[in-house]
Amino acid sequence: MNAPLLTPSALTTSSDRLWASLMTLAQLGATPRGGVRRLALTDLDAQARALVTGWLRDAGCTLQCDAIGNLYAIRPGTEPQASPVAMGSHIDTQPNGGRFDGQYGVLAGLEVLRTLNDAGITTRRPLAVAIWTNEEGTRFQPVMMGSGVYAGAFGLDHCLTQTDGDGTSVAQALAAIGAAGTDPAPAFDAYFEAHIEQGPILENEHKVIGVVESALGQRWFDVVIEGQDAHAGPTPIALRRDALLAAAHLTVAVREIASTHPDYARGTVGRLIVSPNSRNVIPGRVEMSIDLRNARAATLDAMTAAVQAAAARLAREHGVSITLEQTAHFEPCAFDASMLAAIESTAIAYGYPNMRLASGAGHDAVYVARRCPTAMIFVPCERGISHNEIENADPMHLHAGANVLLHAVLARAQRA
Amino acid sequence: MNAPLLTPSALTTSSDRLWASLMTLAQLGATPRGGVRRLALTDLDAQARALVTGWLRDAGCTLQCDAIGNLYAIRPGTEPQASPVAMGSHIDTQPNGGRFDGQYGVLAGLEVLRTLNDAGITTRRPLAVAIWTNEEGTRFQPVMMGSGVYAGAFGLDHCLTQTDGDGTSVAQALAAIGAAGTDPAPAFDAYFEAHIEQGPILENEHKVIGVVESALGQRWFDVVIEGQDAHAGPTPIALRRDALLAAAHLTVAVREIASTHPDYARGTVGRLIVSPNSRNVIPGRVEMSIDLRNARAATLDAMTAAVQAAAARLAREHGVSITLEQTAHFEPCAFDASMLAAIESTAIAYGYPNMRLASGAGHDAVYVARRCPTAMIFVPCERGISHNEIENADPMHLHAGANVLLHAVLARAQRA
Repeated sequence: MNAPLLTPSALTTSSDRLWASLMTLAQLGATPRGGVRRLALTDLDAQARALVTGWLRDAGCTLQCDAIGNLYAIRPGTEPQASPVAMGSHIDTQPNGGRFDGQYGVLAGLEVLRTLNDAGITTRRPLAVAIWTNEEGTRFQPVMMGSGVYAGAFGLDHCLTQTDGDGTSVAQALAAIGAAGTDPAPAFDAYFEAHIEQGPILENEHKVIGVVESALGQRWFDVVIEGQDAHAGPTPIALRRDALLAAAHLTVAVREIASTHPDYARGTVGRLIVSPNSRNVIPGRVEMSIDLRNARAATLDAMTAAVQAAAARLAREHGVSITLEQTAHFEPCAFDASMLAAIESTAIAYGYPNMRLASGAGHDAVYVARRCPTAMIFVPCERGISHNEIENADPMHLHAGANVLLHAVLARAQRA
Repeated sequence: MNAPLLTPSALTTSSDRLWASLMTLAQLGATPRGGVRRLALTDLDAQARALVTGWLRDAGCTLQCDAIGNLYAIRPGTEPQASPVAMGSHIDTQPNGGRFDGQYGVLAGLEVLRTLNDAGITTRRPLAVAIWTNEEGTRFQPVMMGSGVYAGAFGLDHCLTQTDGDGTSVAQALAAIGAAGTDPAPAFDAYFEAHIEQGPILENEHKVIGVVESALGQRWFDVVIEGQDAHAGPTPIALRRDALLAAAHLTVAVREIASTHPDYARGTVGRLIVSPNSRNVIPGRVEMSIDLRNARAATLDAMTAAVQAAAARLAREHGVSITLEQTAHFEPCAFDASMLAAIESTAIAYGYPNMRLASGAGHDAVYVARRCPTAMIFVPCERGISHNEIENADPMHLHAGANVLLHAVLARAQRA
């Protein structure tokens, strides 16, 4: 191990090679509009697994596969018994997915190994690239299945018995593509996941590297508002019990609560169904969703209390009933401070414009963080669009993320 | 004609007889839940026309029928050449209609004639009961077809060629039930329409008689709001272009505008469709309706301008586009001041609690008012519910309305 090689100017990944591997992988399930349709545990997923594990073997890795189909490519270190420093993500896609979501984290890890091979570097700790099964959760639920089983968030047997729309179980699908492994899941010293941001912040702020401090906790509510249907003509304003008007005030309140709370607060009403939904009938019933997110559990609790108070006040003011049922709850996840510092200092050393931010969406890293120190590196994606065939990213930004990953991993892998 | 008989204490309608005629008519198309389903120009409508015209003939009327099927029962006066004072409404119903909507106005007119017969009174002007074809507009559009043709709002040929869902035309349906008449439509001296309120005001104010000053003008708008779909997690509040949030603010603005304008102002968002309508996607598109009503054209214009200004402001503030398309427009209709005064003084003479109000919905009277002085008398209906099988009214209130109709008609019919 030669210290000068670890400076950014002396050791860098190959932008062209990284882009070429992304574009080659993207041919498996390529859609006419430039996206990828490669659902978990399909024949296309099997082809992608074979392609990428072939590349990883060629890069000097041994391959392991566990019972939920997670793949672990291990590159030996000078201390073989030390736990590996891992990179990775997933290679399944949404039904109308893009070329970068998940795939970038895996192939950036491959690119790091190839770069080290070219430079003749062997790290103290082994390195690993993990490919987590079924992150997207579109064919089989729950989402983030492979990393969730790895972390103990879901039982293996529970996941193996989940079925798709055709009645095929996860166990059957794993067997059908030869992805039902018997290897134990390795313990990692640390896990780095590079990913496109899937949001607009970096592009808007003209940053290249996002140092992901945390993944937001989430609370999902189903709301039912019951008022009284009435004819829009004969019913004067003072006698109305308008469920949609109460819903409108609640929608405004959710935004205000998100705007006035700290810690990356977000609040969204994405779904709203009006009944009877006729232009000359005052709506008697509304069903709506509320999605609250925050990086800190205490602030998320405060936002929840504020929404509940607003709902109670609006129910009184509008003569309606409002019920909120919490249907899902994900705790915030804070990533490892020392790993974040390493990512940040590497970005600074390269001169990449960077910023701290939070991940608003779920990622495999959120589950893996339950087992080992974990951090994420974000790079911009065009207009923040993801889960879409037109998902796009700048090769220079992808290269920058791989370089930051390289040096953050190298630094970690030298630690005792 | 004996003057003392015209005082309320000396001449009054029969509550029992009125109720019995309403309940007998309600058997034609009776529904299990106590309502009526008797669509325009069906066999059931033909049976109802035969029943009611039979009663009117028995009460001494001659019957006329015009080309759109409107029925006119004329009771001679002492001056046969004078134009008649008319009463009336419609006897077709909604698909899940009630026993009173429309039917009360016709049978209250019948009850007035029967009461005069019992008292041996012949008025100076002839009296008439009009039964307007297809007020509800559920089988054939437009609504208020018969009175609209009478008033010249619609062309006869246009209406005769309208078809129902089975392709049957109005002309065919009229011929099938023998309702295609050849009589000219008579000109009236005045037209009184008694009707259940179909709203909650009288019940809420503990009034028995509503003196209907006007029918509200209406403006209907289709609104399209275009923002940007985005994932609810990764997209921070400041970068959102949330179409539903803008729609919520606009819904609140419509209510505020209705609450702060005079002249029976009403504003309703009854229909709202969210796209993509997924709990974790910021909505990129909303379609919604806006229904504005007011008794004065100038105030309705001011409300429209206020809504347009709110939409323009919200579009700027939320980074969305908002388009408003006016899809329908009905002018306000002011009823005849001297007829209203007669209704009011009669109600006072009887000691019936009464109030002035506006009709928020359309009625045949709105079209008839284009041809002669017109006024409406409202009586309460239970909880304001109409266009519903559970529509209900208090026999005492129906009786009060018939008494007011009786004396208001008598006073008018004695005029030169």
